[in-house]
Amino acid sequence: MRSIDLNSDLGESYGPWPMGDDAAMLSIVTSANVACGGHASDPETMFRTLTLARDRGVIVGAHPGYADREGFGRRIIPMTPAEIGRMVAAQIGALQAVAALAGTTVRYVKPHGALGNLAADDRTVAEAITAAVRAISPDLVVLAISGTELEHAARAAAAQVVSEIFADRGYLSTGRLVPRSRPDAMIHDAKAAADRLLAFLDSGLMPVVDGDPIPLAAQSICVHGDGPVAVAMAGEIRARLSAAGVAIAPFLKG
Amino acid sequence: MRSIDLNSDLGESYGPWPMGDDAAMLSIVTSANVACGGHASDPETMFRTLTLARDRGVIVGAHPGYADREGFGRRIIPMTPAEIGRMVAAQIGALQAVAALAGTTVRYVKPHGALGNLAADDRTVAEAITAAVRAISPDLVVLAISGTELEHAARAAAAQVVSEIFADRGYLSTGRLVPRSRPDAMIHDAKAAADRLLAFLDSGLMPVVDGDPIPLAAQSICVHGDGPVAVAMAGEIRARLSAAGVAIAPFLKG
Amino acid sequence: MRSIDLNSDLGESYGPWPMGDDAAMLSIVTSANVACGGHASDPETMFRTLTLARDRGVIVGAHPGYADREGFGRRIIPMTPAEIGRMVAAQIGALQAVAALAGTTVRYVKPHGALGNLAADDRTVAEAITAAVRAISPDLVVLAISGTELEHAARAAAAQVVSEIFADRGYLSTGRLVPRSRPDAMIHDAKAAADRLLAFLDSGLMPVVDGDPIPLAAQSICVHGDGPVAVAMAGEIRARLSAAGVAIAPFLKG
Amino acid sequence: MRSIDLNSDLGESYGPWPMGDDAAMLSIVTSANVACGGHASDPETMFRTLTLARDRGVIVGAHPGYADREGFGRRIIPMTPAEIGRMVAAQIGALQAVAALAGTTVRYVKPHGALGNLAADDRTVAEAITAAVRAISPDLVVLAISGTELEHAARAAAAQVVSEIFADRGYLSTGRLVPRSRPDAMIHDAKAAADRLLAFLDSGLMPVVDGDPIPLAAQSICVHGDGPVAVAMAGEIRARLSAAGVAIAPFLKG
Repeated sequence: MRSIDLNSDLGESYGPWPMGDDAAMLSIVTSANVACGGHASDPETMFRTLTLARDRGVIVGAHPGYADREGFGRRIIPMTPAEIGRMVAAQIGALQAVAALAGTTVRYVKPHGALGNLAADDRTVAEAITAAVRAISPDLVVLAISGTELEHAARAAAAQVVSEIFADRGYLSTGRLVPRSRPDAMIHDAKAAADRLLAFLDSGLMPVVDGDPIPLAAQSICVHGDGPVAVAMAGEIRARLSAAGVAIAPFLKG
Repeated sequence: MRSIDLNSDLGESYGPWPMGDDAAMLSIVTSANVACGGHASDPETMFRTLTLARDRGVIVGAHPGYADREGFGRRIIPMTPAEIGRMVAAQIGALQAVAALAGTTVRYVKPHGALGNLAADDRTVAEAITAAVRAISPDLVVLAISGTELEHAARAAAAQVVSEIFADRGYLSTGRLVPRSRPDAMIHDAKAAADRLLAFLDSGLMPVVDGDPIPLAAQSICVHGDGPVAVAMAGEIRARLSAAGVAIAPFLKG
Repeated sequence: MRSIDLNSDLGESYGPWPMGDDAAMLSIVTSANVACGGHASDPETMFRTLTLARDRGVIVGAHPGYADREGFGRRIIPMTPAEIGRMVAAQIGALQAVAALAGTTVRYVKPHGALGNLAADDRTVAEAITAAVRAISPDLVVLAISGTELEHAARAAAAQVVSEIFADRGYLSTGRLVPRSRPDAMIHDAKAAADRLLAFLDSGLMPVVDGDPIPLAAQSICVHGDGPVAVAMAGEIRARLSAAGVAIAPFLKG
Repeated sequence: MRSIDLNSDLGESYGPWPMGDDAAMLSIVTSANVACGGHASDPETMFRTLTLARDRGVIVGAHPGYADREGFGRRIIPMTPAEIGRMVAAQIGALQAVAALAGTTVRYVKPHGALGNLAADDRTVAEAITAAVRAISPDLVVLAISGTELEHAARAAAAQVVSEIFADRGYLSTGRLVPRSRPDAMIHDAKAAADRLLAFLDSGLMPVVDGDPIPLAAQSICVHGDGPVAVAMAGEIRARLSAAGVAIAPFLKG
């Protein structure tokens, strides 16, 4: 039986400002990428999110990002790879400790936003993040976009790696995402997204916008966690995958 | 042979702003209370301080404080005990992870400034801090001012506790510190401070400003880490204790 | 013809996190208390809010608060009155300058949250805020809760003062608000709120929860700007006042 | 008689962390570029610096920078020119209002660090800063490095502009500074710096490291405000210029 994990970026509220419907999303996804106080969150938000995830049996990962709340971690802050390693470590550690208070455990790490993009393209940044993860604990898994420098760096460092694909982003035949500037960058229809994912899960080949389907390895599907249609879209994708006989299960055991 | 630990608050720089002479202090003290990004510090400062401490063989503790850099953690920010527990946990965890990168380990926790004062007086705050420390790791020691609620709460929770006294603060016969508003609150002369400490180490009785010496338990002496005379004062205290045959050694093994 | 101003706290988003529906509220109120980067907001949020207010012809005031985004300005941060004066000045000035870029002008000042509460009760804080306002510009009006120390201090300093009442808070016969801990603290029904305001506008006497109506002076009514029912409640109050022949007009000319 | 202004970056402390010896520098310079809470400072630091400047009769300018204290405004934070304009406006306004409390007035604007460098090279950023300055007050002068885009943009916008040169930076025959990576980037000897400035003040021609002296316009000389030798260097430069009959006077009247 085919099986796949669903992951989403959650816990991205800050102080009095909520973002997304974490409670609803945590009933849909099997792994939660939880913000760590860098691009979003604070100790209260972390604790609330981690407690919800524990209650729902959702696996928890750290989702470190640039320490830039106003930019929501979407701007590249000039830092050396070593500085990035220290920043990422501090954020993972903060989440781990709050997770201990909440009765759960951080199992993996996935970098956020501009940091995730940079780690996908820049090997030295990917290596710095991997080194930070490895120094903290060899048990921590790196969750990397399939085919990126982060995936390669993590494998080279003998870290545990899980690859992800995006539920709602178009792919190019190179294996990269369609740039957001293009009209086919996003898949807005849940049925179309689910059909594409089922085709991929059946064949191991991902449909692309500019040619024949390409082989991709993936143990997890990333679904959006906020925005007006996030819960509906993620819920429908889950329902359609389940109806087609795909088991929705975390890539790590609880 | 008598033996005592010397501890000091270090790693309290922030970004481009240095504070104190950590390199010099780390050649004098045996335990370093390292700021965790709340009242001071950032991942780079943590890493630099932890690396120096590792190189000098100094034991490292976390020194969490209110997340209030402008107030340097000296103002009470209204928070529930549970909120304090989460904040303290996040700071300890951040330091632990950066310590892993720096090749050292956080061994104990001592709250800073206004948070330390509150934890000394308020049992529920003391319990929340102790619970956070215990949840993170039962191996973490609580470093508490001798005779405070924090010491009592940590003992009640079966946490490991070490008691400290201050090298340069006057004591009352109640066991509390002389309030800073009084002229005899501070001991400014290193020789006088050392004489008093030696008297205490010989007898277990601490001289006080308003009566007969009182019994105090202490495995560590806190010396100031910044200010124009901190290094000279701490160095002279260490030299005089050593000359009198007191071994200066950490309260935890390296 | 009776005339009254409606004011509301707006511009309280931060970075990626929206709060409230400012565009809708700015079609209902005649004066906007705009956050200044202390308890909420940032230069982008200020500019967006000020531009909207300018386009709708809404009068703009500064809404300074404790520089505590995580606490949303609802916690008292220990500061001297002089420190409060400097903090309030910096926030007002920031909003003034962004207002100049947005083609509008800050006309009044109303302190937010815990700072507003403190200024209502503590004369020295009220005087410090008034002094800051006066130093920046004698043209700036102080918007104060009717009967508070802030109102008294501003009058004593010969500052221009406008008094406000709350649309949805119960009053005691002392003139103070019913504490939030009591069930009659809030008026949740727009019709009841409007009836009470009309009774007050007709008679100058405000109904209270514990006795006969009391005389209150008010040139403005404060309505809530966020929460799920804010727009509906404010809209209905405006509609009912208008239907009863009350002109809804700013307390300052545009 | 020849006359020149001396300016320096001051007021760059933050909370408990001092930077530089502002009191000493304010006895040497005639214009102070005062940090505004972006790359450094806070309302207390602003007030203290502005009060000192007022007492010494030193002219005050705003020194806005990226809102990045950890990077001290030395990192380029990705922002659109319009966003930069709003950020700069908010900082100038904050300083203006605190200056009103301190009994002085902000007279000019000089961007800091990475923002200053970008404004020197990027016309759209230079125009955004100039537009913000002009919107706040046409009386505000732009202090620009001689020959930069900021100088050109300010002149094109009919803003008042004053040009500055650096006391201790080597110049290329192109009029640009020698890059910091080269050994001749900095002039470390106060006598050599003063000799070069006197040659320039006599001839209007600035000695360069790679050819014949070049014509430069300058009404102000920028001297460093922090670092171990800043006060000594600035003091000696002032003394030597004065001894050579150069009047040290602000570019704006007090």
